[in-house]
Amino acid sequence: MALIVQKYGGTSVGSPERIKKVAQRVAKYQEQGHQVVVVVSAMSGETNRLIELAKTIQAQPDPRELDVVISTGEQVTIGLMAMALMQEGLQAKSYTGAQVQILTDSAFTKARILSIDEQSIRTDLANGCVVVVAGFQGMDEEGNITTLGRGGSDTTGVAIAAALRADECQIYTDVDGVYTTDPRVVPEARRLKNITFEEMLEMASLGSKVLQIRAVEFAGKYKVKLRVLSSFSEDFGQEGAGTLITFEEDNKMEQAIISGIAFNRDEAKITVRGVPDKPGIAYQILGPVSDANIDVDIIIQNVGVDGTTDFSFTVHRNEFAKAMDILKNKVQKHIGARDVIGDDKTAKVSVVGVGMRSHVGIASKMFRTLAEEGINIQMISTSEIKISVIIDEKYLELAVRVLHQAFDLDQEIL
Amino acid sequence: MALIVQKYGGTSVGSPERIKKVAQRVAKYQEQGHQVVVVVSAMSGETNRLIELAKTIQAQPDPRELDVVISTGEQVTIGLMAMALMQEGLQAKSYTGAQVQILTDSAFTKARILSIDEQSIRTDLANGCVVVVAGFQGMDEEGNITTLGRGGSDTTGVAIAAALRADECQIYTDVDGVYTTDPRVVPEARRLKNITFEEMLEMASLGSKVLQIRAVEFAGKYKVKLRVLSSFSEDFGQEGAGTLITFEEDNKMEQAIISGIAFNRDEAKITVRGVPDKPGIAYQILGPVSDANIDVDIIIQNVGVDGTTDFSFTVHRNEFAKAMDILKNKVQKHIGARDVIGDDKTAKVSVVGVGMRSHVGIASKMFRTLAEEGINIQMISTSEIKISVIIDEKYLELAVRVLHQAFDLDQEIL
Repeated sequence: MALIVQKYGGTSVGSPERIKKVAQRVAKYQEQGHQVVVVVSAMSGETNRLIELAKTIQAQPDPRELDVVISTGEQVTIGLMAMALMQEGLQAKSYTGAQVQILTDSAFTKARILSIDEQSIRTDLANGCVVVVAGFQGMDEEGNITTLGRGGSDTTGVAIAAALRADECQIYTDVDGVYTTDPRVVPEARRLKNITFEEMLEMASLGSKVLQIRAVEFAGKYKVKLRVLSSFSEDFGQEGAGTLITFEEDNKMEQAIISGIAFNRDEAKITVRGVPDKPGIAYQILGPVSDANIDVDIIIQNVGVDGTTDFSFTVHRNEFAKAMDILKNKVQKHIGARDVIGDDKTAKVSVVGVGMRSHVGIASKMFRTLAEEGINIQMISTSEIKISVIIDEKYLELAVRVLHQAFDLDQEIL
Repeated sequence: MALIVQKYGGTSVGSPERIKKVAQRVAKYQEQGHQVVVVVSAMSGETNRLIELAKTIQAQPDPRELDVVISTGEQVTIGLMAMALMQEGLQAKSYTGAQVQILTDSAFTKARILSIDEQSIRTDLANGCVVVVAGFQGMDEEGNITTLGRGGSDTTGVAIAAALRADECQIYTDVDGVYTTDPRVVPEARRLKNITFEEMLEMASLGSKVLQIRAVEFAGKYKVKLRVLSSFSEDFGQEGAGTLITFEEDNKMEQAIISGIAFNRDEAKITVRGVPDKPGIAYQILGPVSDANIDVDIIIQNVGVDGTTDFSFTVHRNEFAKAMDILKNKVQKHIGARDVIGDDKTAKVSVVGVGMRSHVGIASKMFRTLAEEGINIQMISTSEIKISVIIDEKYLELAVRVLHQAFDLDQEIL
């Protein structure tokens, strides 16, 4: 018998029929003797509907009140899920974040979990009850309703699993695991049976979008065994289903050098040229961009020549025009830069793998593979376990395919 | 400066535009120096939508979980209303029933309020804040979410007003007060400036539907000054707007004998004939009806003749077939009754007024008026301050009109 926390996202609970399917899955787990806590998101589309509704009243909705409004999405799902479980003949009981209690800080719309009181859940589980918890939400010390930000339901699942010391936290999504790359681009892409937390962090932040990055961090911190599974597949409960996200130290097997190829289509690059090469310049360039709430991804500054340097970074394509406007009209003259140029027809491709730490030659293999296809590398950025390049977006699929092949990712590893 | 609780129903907050209108009204009250607590319902249609959603999962939704689901309706409105108030430049803060805390018993879907902790609301009001409270909902001692049943938002408004010892509880609705009868039937119907609690109770239960009957009882018990107003009219704050519901003892003026003519179109009558005239028979007839959750309105049993009697009662027209089925198949043979007959083409008309207590001749005037129009009276039921008759439904409008005229209800009273 195991204690399993299962988290189902918005698509998995997107209709009454799907909610019933999830209840049937939970029933099978209980039949096998497991204790199950189900964490659910709002039904797909619901959170956006509520945000739009709020915006018809206030263009910039008050964060506290926005959380009051949008937290209702998950509250509806927990009630419906508990009902569906009862229809399957199970005992079930729902909890809002406040009812659990999931205590958070007071950063409305992006709160962080401080603690979880798991006693009531434990009692219910001991009584044979399936416990249904609203993802994405909590309560601050003053009793205000808070939400954890986009994808926060994953974090709720992991946090509940950590508090209960659950045997496994299963994240159900519309894919059946983490792949070596997107199968729509490379049909030979292979599901990874295991991936390390560090790799998962890089894959998630690089656009794999399977798991919220905070949830992965949280799982790493509290050593929660995390498994990504498809809520649409019929097999469940089997050993080896989905992708298990492991701690590196647990991973005794020979590690593949590269685990996957991540990519992001929506990258736009901006270069500020002829920037005086002096302290504080990076902040003077990125400060106004950040103030405008534009997220910056890769940042590169090369060694300067003759007292000036070029400063480059990438932003989401949707924010390219806004960022260019800020730089040209607010920053360029102020810092005495020569020019600001940009290109929103770029894409990012990354090879990710903990194995690359101890293996030389990954970078050169990557660059040679791209060169052989005539793909020009516009920017390069590296971390301990990944190498990212910015290329012309029209070569994106080609680059992903040739890299996938070059690193033998279509070959099953024992 | 007064402390005013304003309750807005689903139609008054039925769209973002209407929510903004309400916020403008509240702003004007605050400008006049009043402290305002706003109690809101779910946006119109929302509660029904949520109930239907629950029923797609469970034909008979679990009451605890149904309350979890449907309480989100008001929660959305409080957030939106607080935002709308901020847009008007006011400070505002929303509270769910649990956050207030409105403590109820655990009778899910029809809970009763036990106590209200009004301290946080008082603090917010003292700080110049408009407080927005979710109607219809509360929390039991174990922290479960409860709802108060249909129309429960009125009760919340009155209960909050009682807890705060508010100067007035204003119930905003889509009519501008309580009328002598339905103006759609009698164009000369007149808005009552005052009505007593007792009359209001009779009017509400007889189908006037302006106020939930529990709210009126609650207001009477805690001596809350209650005013019914239209949320669509432009005049507000004026003395004498809407209808003030008074305690009889406060009412020094000469009381009109009759305050209004209430009626109900959806009445179906059932008679069990030839019932053995012995103890326990009424329970044997109505027990199975009540067990089937069918509400019974008027009940009449006349003096028996030769050891048998006829037992009559009325039910809502929608439940006529179900009730007839129960009586014919479960009750008739069991109690040895001769026959069960029924008619679902009937209606109820009532004259209501505290003045009739001390005036003779009201009943005879009513019966004569109907007789003069050739309207046959099928059943009669009376209380201290009302006389109800069941008649053929085709005469309903005619009966209401002639009674309205006979009792001079179109004449303004000083």
